[in-house]
Amino acid sequence: MVHPGMVERGSAHVREKRRRRRAEILHGALRAFREKGFHATTLDDIALHVGVRKTALYHYFPDKQSILHECHREASAELARIVRGARTFPSAREQLRYVVREHVRVMTETLEGSPLAFEVTAFSPERQRELMAARDTYERAVRRIIARGIRRGEFKRIDPKVAVFIVLGAINWIARWYRPEGALHAAELGKQYADHLVGGLERR
Amino acid sequence: MVHPGMVERGSAHVREKRRRRRAEILHGALRAFREKGFHATTLDDIALHVGVRKTALYHYFPDKQSILHECHREASAELARIVRGARTFPSAREQLRYVVREHVRVMTETLEGSPLAFEVTAFSPERQRELMAARDTYERAVRRIIARGIRRGEFKRIDPKVAVFIVLGAINWIARWYRPEGALHAAELGKQYADHLVGGLERR
Repeated sequence: MVHPGMVERGSAHVREKRRRRRAEILHGALRAFREKGFHATTLDDIALHVGVRKTALYHYFPDKQSILHECHREASAELARIVRGARTFPSAREQLRYVVREHVRVMTETLEGSPLAFEVTAFSPERQRELMAARDTYERAVRRIIARGIRRGEFKRIDPKVAVFIVLGAINWIARWYRPEGALHAAELGKQYADHLVGGLERR
Repeated sequence: MVHPGMVERGSAHVREKRRRRRAEILHGALRAFREKGFHATTLDDIALHVGVRKTALYHYFPDKQSILHECHREASAELARIVRGARTFPSAREQLRYVVREHVRVMTETLEGSPLAFEVTAFSPERQRELMAARDTYERAVRRIIARGIRRGEFKRIDPKVAVFIVLGAINWIARWYRPEGALHAAELGKQYADHLVGGLERR
């Protein structure tokens, strides 16, 4: 006789296994996209990177676009968490340093340098709207931190909108050159980005 | 009877007219690429933006790829001139400020916010190599300015290679949001980019 508790533990185990396999698929896909670009990547390439057969992918995602979409959603959710986490720092300077460091970590570790930000046009108009809404929310949050820093006299009197483009442009560009197997460590990189991009806003 | 001098003036006039028409085609093409992306743009779109018939384009360029290639070459030549021009400034700080301001001007005025830096894969391997060699030469020149600034004690002791990625990433990203008809002026923009990106390297 199967004890109900065993079933519970069994399903939790299965759920955990599925969750891990799902994460492996997303990571394998990101590596494949980085190597060949989204358009040239096939489901076979992704299966090869994950180390499973292509049919196994279909248990998790119906197609390549859905995989890219899920990568985007996870990255967006992580950026939203970062913005919330930044609120615990008292100064705008420390808030922005935290956001820059963590965003660099998302680019290098979560996304492994995959050029997600360059692939928005691969989606249906509906999904594009969803992703752009998430991006706009994030940009507004970063802009508010910068505007607050200007009001508090921490930052120079610049156009916060342009400052956001400078900061996020520099970070998004990481996808153009970063290789996970390279010599640069994510934490070091995050610190240099924060020193450069937040330092450039501070009043002397 | 036609005087030889008149023929000379005539050819100079014709050459000047051809030069101007050629520049008009490149500008019309950049506007078309910005609106629809390089891949979706047709020669008809470009002709419409220039205000000529498609057949008139063939007197100047055999195809769309050649037009994009020429835009890249002109932008590369302009960046090379900027790097030479920077040498007249005594400090690394002023050299880098000049390069950033002028590069922002190339992005906004010469290229009108067209995403050239994103379209390298549209070319044959040979042309890709040529463009990437020009880009590498430019990146090395900017890196040398930053390394000199560190040696002279003007800049913080950072990794010059990463600093170049930060500076050029922020500038290249302009193609992602800039609209020539918008409210931001190129000169103002160049100053904010120089303040932010060079300021972030300076020692306090």
